[in-house]
Amino acid sequence: MKTDKLYYGAAYYEEYLPYDRIDKDFMMMNRAGINVIRIGESTWSTWEPVEGEFDFSLLKHMLDKALEYDLSVIVGTPTYAIPSWMAKKYPDILALTHNGQGLYGHRQNMDITNPDYLRHCEIIIRKMMEVIKDYKNVIGIQIDNETKPYDTCTKYAQDKFVKYMQGMYKDIEEMNREFGFNYWSNSIHRWEDFPDVRGTINGSLSAEYKYFQRTLVTDFFEWQKNIIREYIKDNVFITHNFDFGWKGFSFGLQPEVNQHDAAKSLDVAGCDIYHPTRNSLTGREISFCGAIAYSLKKDNYLVLETEAQGFAEWTPYEGQLRLQAYSHLAGGANSVMYWHWFSLHNAIETYWKGVLSHDFSENAVYKEACIVGNELKKYGDKLKNLKVKSEVAILVSNRALSGIDEFPIFGGLTYNDIVRKFYDCFYDINIFCDVLDSKDKESFKNYKLIVCPALYSATEEELNALKEYVKEGGTLVTGFKTGFSDEHLKVYHDTEPHILNEVIGAHYDQFTVPDGVCADNKELSNFMELLTADSADVIYPYENKHYDKYAAVTKNKYNDGFAYYVAANLADKTLTKVLKMALESAKIDLPNATFPVVIKSGINDYQKRITYIFNYSDDDVTLKEGVARGHEILTDKVYNGESVTIPMWSFLVLEEI
Amino acid sequence: MKTDKLYYGAAYYEEYLPYDRIDKDFMMMNRAGINVIRIGESTWSTWEPVEGEFDFSLLKHMLDKALEYDLSVIVGTPTYAIPSWMAKKYPDILALTHNGQGLYGHRQNMDITNPDYLRHCEIIIRKMMEVIKDYKNVIGIQIDNETKPYDTCTKYAQDKFVKYMQGMYKDIEEMNREFGFNYWSNSIHRWEDFPDVRGTINGSLSAEYKYFQRTLVTDFFEWQKNIIREYIKDNVFITHNFDFGWKGFSFGLQPEVNQHDAAKSLDVAGCDIYHPTRNSLTGREISFCGAIAYSLKKDNYLVLETEAQGFAEWTPYEGQLRLQAYSHLAGGANSVMYWHWFSLHNAIETYWKGVLSHDFSENAVYKEACIVGNELKKYGDKLKNLKVKSEVAILVSNRALSGIDEFPIFGGLTYNDIVRKFYDCFYDINIFCDVLDSKDKESFKNYKLIVCPALYSATEEELNALKEYVKEGGTLVTGFKTGFSDEHLKVYHDTEPHILNEVIGAHYDQFTVPDGVCADNKELSNFMELLTADSADVIYPYENKHYDKYAAVTKNKYNDGFAYYVAANLADKTLTKVLKMALESAKIDLPNATFPVVIKSGINDYQKRITYIFNYSDDDVTLKEGVARGHEILTDKVYNGESVTIPMWSFLVLEEI
Amino acid sequence: MKTDKLYYGAAYYEEYLPYDRIDKDFMMMNRAGINVIRIGESTWSTWEPVEGEFDFSLLKHMLDKALEYDLSVIVGTPTYAIPSWMAKKYPDILALTHNGQGLYGHRQNMDITNPDYLRHCEIIIRKMMEVIKDYKNVIGIQIDNETKPYDTCTKYAQDKFVKYMQGMYKDIEEMNREFGFNYWSNSIHRWEDFPDVRGTINGSLSAEYKYFQRTLVTDFFEWQKNIIREYIKDNVFITHNFDFGWKGFSFGLQPEVNQHDAAKSLDVAGCDIYHPTRNSLTGREISFCGAIAYSLKKDNYLVLETEAQGFAEWTPYEGQLRLQAYSHLAGGANSVMYWHWFSLHNAIETYWKGVLSHDFSENAVYKEACIVGNELKKYGDKLKNLKVKSEVAILVSNRALSGIDEFPIFGGLTYNDIVRKFYDCFYDINIFCDVLDSKDKESFKNYKLIVCPALYSATEEELNALKEYVKEGGTLVTGFKTGFSDEHLKVYHDTEPHILNEVIGAHYDQFTVPDGVCADNKELSNFMELLTADSADVIYPYENKHYDKYAAVTKNKYNDGFAYYVAANLADKTLTKVLKMALESAKIDLPNATFPVVIKSGINDYQKRITYIFNYSDDDVTLKEGVARGHEILTDKVYNGESVTIPMWSFLVLEEI
Repeated sequence: MKTDKLYYGAAYYEEYLPYDRIDKDFMMMNRAGINVIRIGESTWSTWEPVEGEFDFSLLKHMLDKALEYDLSVIVGTPTYAIPSWMAKKYPDILALTHNGQGLYGHRQNMDITNPDYLRHCEIIIRKMMEVIKDYKNVIGIQIDNETKPYDTCTKYAQDKFVKYMQGMYKDIEEMNREFGFNYWSNSIHRWEDFPDVRGTINGSLSAEYKYFQRTLVTDFFEWQKNIIREYIKDNVFITHNFDFGWKGFSFGLQPEVNQHDAAKSLDVAGCDIYHPTRNSLTGREISFCGAIAYSLKKDNYLVLETEAQGFAEWTPYEGQLRLQAYSHLAGGANSVMYWHWFSLHNAIETYWKGVLSHDFSENAVYKEACIVGNELKKYGDKLKNLKVKSEVAILVSNRALSGIDEFPIFGGLTYNDIVRKFYDCFYDINIFCDVLDSKDKESFKNYKLIVCPALYSATEEELNALKEYVKEGGTLVTGFKTGFSDEHLKVYHDTEPHILNEVIGAHYDQFTVPDGVCADNKELSNFMELLTADSADVIYPYENKHYDKYAAVTKNKYNDGFAYYVAANLADKTLTKVLKMALESAKIDLPNATFPVVIKSGINDYQKRITYIFNYSDDDVTLKEGVARGHEILTDKVYNGESVTIPMWSFLVLEEI
Repeated sequence: MKTDKLYYGAAYYEEYLPYDRIDKDFMMMNRAGINVIRIGESTWSTWEPVEGEFDFSLLKHMLDKALEYDLSVIVGTPTYAIPSWMAKKYPDILALTHNGQGLYGHRQNMDITNPDYLRHCEIIIRKMMEVIKDYKNVIGIQIDNETKPYDTCTKYAQDKFVKYMQGMYKDIEEMNREFGFNYWSNSIHRWEDFPDVRGTINGSLSAEYKYFQRTLVTDFFEWQKNIIREYIKDNVFITHNFDFGWKGFSFGLQPEVNQHDAAKSLDVAGCDIYHPTRNSLTGREISFCGAIAYSLKKDNYLVLETEAQGFAEWTPYEGQLRLQAYSHLAGGANSVMYWHWFSLHNAIETYWKGVLSHDFSENAVYKEACIVGNELKKYGDKLKNLKVKSEVAILVSNRALSGIDEFPIFGGLTYNDIVRKFYDCFYDINIFCDVLDSKDKESFKNYKLIVCPALYSATEEELNALKEYVKEGGTLVTGFKTGFSDEHLKVYHDTEPHILNEVIGAHYDQFTVPDGVCADNKELSNFMELLTADSADVIYPYENKHYDKYAAVTKNKYNDGFAYYVAANLADKTLTKVLKMALESAKIDLPNATFPVVIKSGINDYQKRITYIFNYSDDDVTLKEGVARGHEILTDKVYNGESVTIPMWSFLVLEEI
Repeated sequence: MKTDKLYYGAAYYEEYLPYDRIDKDFMMMNRAGINVIRIGESTWSTWEPVEGEFDFSLLKHMLDKALEYDLSVIVGTPTYAIPSWMAKKYPDILALTHNGQGLYGHRQNMDITNPDYLRHCEIIIRKMMEVIKDYKNVIGIQIDNETKPYDTCTKYAQDKFVKYMQGMYKDIEEMNREFGFNYWSNSIHRWEDFPDVRGTINGSLSAEYKYFQRTLVTDFFEWQKNIIREYIKDNVFITHNFDFGWKGFSFGLQPEVNQHDAAKSLDVAGCDIYHPTRNSLTGREISFCGAIAYSLKKDNYLVLETEAQGFAEWTPYEGQLRLQAYSHLAGGANSVMYWHWFSLHNAIETYWKGVLSHDFSENAVYKEACIVGNELKKYGDKLKNLKVKSEVAILVSNRALSGIDEFPIFGGLTYNDIVRKFYDCFYDINIFCDVLDSKDKESFKNYKLIVCPALYSATEEELNALKEYVKEGGTLVTGFKTGFSDEHLKVYHDTEPHILNEVIGAHYDQFTVPDGVCADNKELSNFMELLTADSADVIYPYENKHYDKYAAVTKNKYNDGFAYYVAANLADKTLTKVLKMALESAKIDLPNATFPVVIKSGINDYQKRITYIFNYSDDDVTLKEGVARGHEILTDKVYNGESVTIPMWSFLVLEEI
């Protein structure tokens, strides 16, 4: 979504303040150039302390005060954490999951298919929308918060699931066959014998249930959106703060939500990006997660949450907060919003720190936020609504992710590990992949190069689309695990990789775990397919007396295109070499700088190219000649390709002249 | 059991095929020299899709087709995995265990004492036997599959257990005394106060319940056998596929079943042996587990399951599949049957691969199976029914295993670790131990040397039998933890080791965990007894200023025999030295080759000695002169002791001339 | 409590004997100089085998025999392990905890608020007191055994807790504010909506419930004491065997009991101290835990349990048992009692060995106990009732411990780790801290130096007392995490550390996890506050380009006193340097010997200073001149400061001349 300005802000919770200081806070925000707050999503029990009794005084107070201090507001529906009275009255709202039923206390542990829950959601949403609908400073509504299915396995959910299966399979025996239920006597011959899915040992069923659970989120959004739109005008956007596969920080594709589907109910995609800092700050998470967020609506997105101080181990070095903010913008974000303004004095997230520390003083982070905020106010007009588009796309798939979760790779290599390895190797040579849902075949033609890592669970339609893409002249990089099973995790029973073997000019009928096997002189780990090149050229063979007849990497000319196949979990350096070859096949030029120099660019509202050159290192870096060209916006300097030094954790923003 | 030929085969499941290809499969089998399939044991829900409705068409189809392709068949009863309708109708069939009650889905999680389960078992077994009883190609029936008690702790099981205890103890106070129940106020003074065994902290009770659980399997076999024999003639054997203590692969004595007892209901012992391959292939598991299997009926056994490809990390190197097959035969196996023919396209064992991969192509493993199968067809007559007998026996005991499980040794050294250490040190010098149940004192006299590792929980009868054995001139090697407690884990309260202290001429009253203590210049770990030599000679003292008055290893002449005592967990090299001394005392000659050369032999049906010389290494080995003598069957060469080179993972089969 | 002699003894359980040998045992005790046994606490089911039927014959037998052999007796109430009939009849006596409800079997898993349990406790206590009240050799009664709340979360306990909260907060909204319950919608607006505390994610609530659970123990003691005193005369003491925070051995402050509060019901503090031995024997646990025990009544204490042999890995080297016994006395213990006399032949603690091994022989440990016992008999009169008092006190707090448990420090550094680091660094330079409950401000004035590590959850009263202490001339060493939150874990919202920032002349508004940061040239770990010195001197700055403006250690003159602040988890050597500076500020002299030489002293009944010089090493150590002065009691030698060599694991006991 295009916005009229860049939004810089923070989540704000007056309800958590230890004393009355909203004026002080909003004054500090004004001074910092903060122009938006996000409120309301966490505190149902404050808005409805007792069933049917409502008290929105605090909400109104925040909205009124925000008006007074000229702050825009994004209001969240508070449905992700239920009040204690609701759990007391309807104990079965707490979701039954694979780990049994939870106790009241934690957020996000309810059954989002429970009718009592939904009825109460509707009531609180309607009441809240009534309150806010006439506030001019409300620019957006956030549905819920980082919604998931919370692994609901209640009778409501499982009944829906059985109906979903009945819809898919008129003939129950067809289901038995496709899912391989007769294994270990699990076949089901009457629908009423369908067992509790939580006990299943059938990966196809388990993955299908996860697929089904993802649809619950999609439906929940559509349902909330429709209620909200009864009250809220179209100029107020509806969004959601999507989060990502988590590895102590935002890491990969979200396993529990199909964000591409769920985003259809939204006007603009929002996201939460958290990442390591200090010596571990690389910008990779900001870039990868931002690319997903951009892909959801194929448009600019909002960063609704990112860390200010975050965990103790994330406390940023001087300069990093600013570097991070511009990194978000460089990916096409139209907002940078911290979670949250002030650090909490109680409860579980006491040590997930905000812009302000517990003492509310003007600490180092606040001071740096002031710099950022005032720069954005001054220069944001040139930086907003950046249109970013790559010649390379990477395909992602929840189905494939679930498939590899069900059948883990030796050593615990996950789907997201594999995807990120491909993405990051590109990132480090300043090639940024757009992210496509693997089903989005219509978009393939817009790219010179498509990367398809570990598309384990793939429909024939998906595989044929890739085939077609190469046939028509595209360059494909794919590799191990791709095209091995169908959408229900039934392994294809002909030559592997299914359909693609023709495209890559190679096939395999065995795979193993490398043990003393190298490729390109580097020891392999986790997994290797014993790939036999048919028409393909062997780029790297396996180096090991037992396996030297097999290929680790092949390249094949197929009709007008090229297909590279990476049969093993290569070392980063080797994979990077392969990716460079693929770029050459696709006729894509390589930028002449590599990580820790990160160069990102896009087209602004004035149809000018804005180029960011970031230094993601703890030392100064000096750019080669020819790299920096253009008008540096923040310093008003002009660069004509001369060698220039960027201080540690700093950057240039160059406007095309 | 003697067989008329060697059986080479695989488990076959038409019910799991993604398309009709049984003719293709059986033709491929014929080409490979495969002559037997194992079917039927996994698919109750296919045979009885709805309660009381039976459909054996697929079973009959397989049997008919097998007839057509001249394949023998072993049929399993399908009772180890219940249909979903049964779990729906009788929810308490799913066993309550120490981890609570399971959910439907997994196999082998039912209560094998549940009357509803047993009633339905009886029905399906009778129906199935009706179907197969007239098939001439059915050569054997397998009872169930890798049966265990599945830790059943249901009321049915616990009621039986209390009755079992009542049977053992007329006087409840005698039970309290023997089990030490008054500890922490656990004594029971009325049978109705007997608590749920799952909560006990009493090792004696916990171990006794495990003992009791093992009897459930013995009883279950006897019960199934009697039903089967109502239908099946005596020329069709009844067997079971016993599996072993598992450590990621078949490793040691099975803790949950007393196989020596359970095998009494069988005509022939069958077993499942899985093991690492590639650089970790040593033949040790094949040898050790095979020795157990041979011991169960003191006769040839069947390998009903072993890996073809197995897990990804087990994919064999070229030559290994063949080496493995002959290794089984060298231990006295009369069959080598793969689990399974083709790799599954769905469900939990999708990645436990068969002979064929998912694509059914003629892969490397199939090609090697063809070599093996056709060799066996040609030469099997000389190799079958190999009578193997050693001069050395190793004693094993489930009681001792449970005892050490209840009172773990520092660092997690298990009973099976200890047993395998003794076994493997012998293995590596080409001494192969027969395995005896520790109660089998009648057999002691057949051996020159008996090894008795860690017989922790030992009856006085067992200990006296060992005493008698040495008195009569036998050589005994025993060691730490042996004879420490009685059969109910009550520690003996006189000089340790109980009874044996006289035999070994040494005793101890303290033990500890070595910390900077050596023996034979090698650092010790896990456990050491502070052994004082009385009449014994000290072979190795402890090397440490605090412990140098104590012995790590002693040797004692006791009447006509010798007793060695190993008081600590020695380094392999030291233990090997001790074992060699014991062999010398027992007047047993050492072969002049050591691992990776493995030499096994036995007497065939023609009363000729067949000697296998295996090379278990990734390099060629050259045998010393004098090692290879005889007629090499597969190549028809004659060796007269000349130096000969065996390629990596290859072997010779020499027939005594 | 002062005693008439030193008590040397062991727990004795005739009820666990495998055969009748009480006379033999008591004769062996007599020979060893053992003069006291502890009996009775573990065997409710022996005293009351069936509800309402009592059998104290064994108890009486032990008491009679003890009389005969002139042994004093401490009798325990048997309430910490319930009989099986009680669990059968009242299933809900087994506590519901955060892990659900336990099964019968384990000890210490009952709900100590359950009325049925309490009623039965009262009955058995009364019956037992009736039996023992006239035995002259009963010198003390032990209430229960290592009592804890056992995490009871039953309705009885939670109802009490809600009442406790209601008592504290008249206004439920005040509770919501102080506990921050509105976070994630957890606020409670009617008491009947109070949820099961087990589900809470609110650290304040979780810690408060732990606080409440600790009061249950305090109340339980007071209740038992009152019943006991109806029968038992005042010359018989009432005690309890407190144990400590456990880390595989006694390590730190007990988290589940406020021992300072609970000890109010006792006449004398008793304790259980278990520790590593052999090369890991340092005396630190004996010293630290003994100091806590001494602090409970500010008087001599009893060691009611300590290891003889203990676990296999604790089997002592020759000399260590004796060294340990005297180490207890040096800390002010008036007894050394082993757990237990003989090793058990059954049940869970079979391998927690006593003085005697399972064979009851005169093993090495018994022989050493004979030396100790006879020495104590001979010289005990000079060694008993040792008055020990330091010039340094360390403050401890269960509130602070729970607080850090709720909000763990990166890398798992616990409250006890931090406290022990300060204590141990002092110990190694022969400065021994008295231990004070952090609330005990009246005692502050008795110390020249107060150490206050990690007082995370601190009342303003506590912080003001520290301020006052320094103001009046005291020296304070405090550090990271101190004064960060209030007593309900609400973080203080003004300058950190709250109140103390003025005292230390420094403050911080950020903290982080060190990553490549040093102080005093040593790499830091876990945690560092970004401390800004205001009036303070920087003793050690952080060494790192990003943090060099912040201080790791500061020193501030505040009115008449000094305050040192340690802002990070320093290396031991650095912390020791800081502590030495603080000692200098406090004008406390350093002894001229350091670990492994440990010098402890106190004043005996004859007002003479008794000084122990221990050698805690595996080698002889030679003392510097001037260290050893006085009359060595055991050898009757006189030392005048000459250099003297102490053998490994040995010591001197010097009486002031």
